Amino acid sequence: MSKIFFDSAISLDGFFAGENRSSDNPMGGVSGKLHQWMFKQKAFWKHIKVEGGGEENDADGKLIDETFARTGSYIMGKRMFEEGEVSWAEDLYEADVYVLTHEKRDPWVQKGSTTFYFINDGIESALEKATQSAQGKDIRIQGGANTIQQFLNAGLVDEFFIHISPVFLGSGIRLFDNIDKDKYDIKIDQIFESELTTHIKYKLMKK
Amino acid sequence: MSKIFFDSAISLDGFFAGENRSSDNPMGGVSGKLHQWMFKQKAFWKHIKVEGGGEENDADGKLIDETFARTGSYIMGKRMFEEGEVSWAEDLYEADVYVLTHEKRDPWVQKGSTTFYFINDGIESALEKATQSAQGKDIRIQGGANTIQQFLNAGLVDEFFIHISPVFLGSGIRLFDNIDKDKYDIKIDQIFESELTTHIKYKLMKK
Repeated sequence: MSKIFFDSAISLDGFFAGENRSSDNPMGGVSGKLHQWMFKQKAFWKHIKVEGGGEENDADGKLIDETFARTGSYIMGKRMFEEGEVSWAEDLYEADVYVLTHEKRDPWVQKGSTTFYFINDGIESALEKATQSAQGKDIRIQGGANTIQQFLNAGLVDEFFIHISPVFLGSGIRLFDNIDKDKYDIKIDQIFESELTTHIKYKLMKK
Repeated sequence: MSKIFFDSAISLDGFFAGENRSSDNPMGGVSGKLHQWMFKQKAFWKHIKVEGGGEENDADGKLIDETFARTGSYIMGKRMFEEGEVSWAEDLYEADVYVLTHEKRDPWVQKGSTTFYFINDGIESALEKATQSAQGKDIRIQGGANTIQQFLNAGLVDEFFIHISPVFLGSGIRLFDNIDKDKYDIKIDQIFESELTTHIKYKLMKK
């Protein structure tokens, strides 16, 4: 059965993105600080379909590959979509992507296997469609923070990874804000050490 | 040379304490959720000088012992002091404790080796006195969060432990709030896995 998960990098002070996000300034310009561990990995550049980049291929790269491989469909917020729309490579996701929006828009079918669907009747509707798309693989709540918070607080998340970068950002958008504290029992599942981040995987049991 | 450190438990959403803290409600009632890993350990109950409690003595207990043993003096905020004053065992700290306050108050000399000194001329003054007291051992910034933030933002911290409990608190006082993002280069030093928390030690190099 498909699992619903998210997988997000945060700073020591819990920020998922910086201030003043826009398509000209994705993630508020903090990606370099949060994603350093990815930038060194060949796997990262392969998945974003960019030539060059890092040449390393260690445990961090394996994690990137595994996360990509397990995912059968994606759900993301409109804001994250708009930030990426202008710059993402064609067929970046290689899967169906459900974008939460209040607008009506026809699906955007890309060459390859990526199609963006625009869902304006709520997160459960998006999840139902994403589950069909995933065909037994897992469903990744891609972001942003607000979308992840909605799924967490609806009791819909099965597990998540956080990657804690050894850096303070001071301000921005926190991944875990206004979280319903009584929704889950949480267990630490796995920890992977790395020089540039700390990977922790948690399993959630809905109360 | 003495190192200046803090060692704090936080929730997944970064909270160090809950709402409505008072001496009747230390830490806003969240200690049980953040400190479960300590409560199981014999070392914890030994250091707070309470009979009974947990009987385990594993790597978590060793960490408690080591943190206690390395500390030559403590610095804490007035609010944390007032929360604990009414309930702490006599001679809990077994060292000099410098309490940051705006008031004048004579030292409180306890039986054993704990003396509380009340410092009303700033954190550098407290640190200078705490360094003398420590006699080469390390100086622990005990808390609360605001006191730790003051030392961090003054560029005075050499290293810290966080212990991340697999729990959301939803609200309260965050350990890392309003942190100056440009003060340090930070390295992950050590990670200790545990069932009930994740211990991560960071080293800070002032920029």
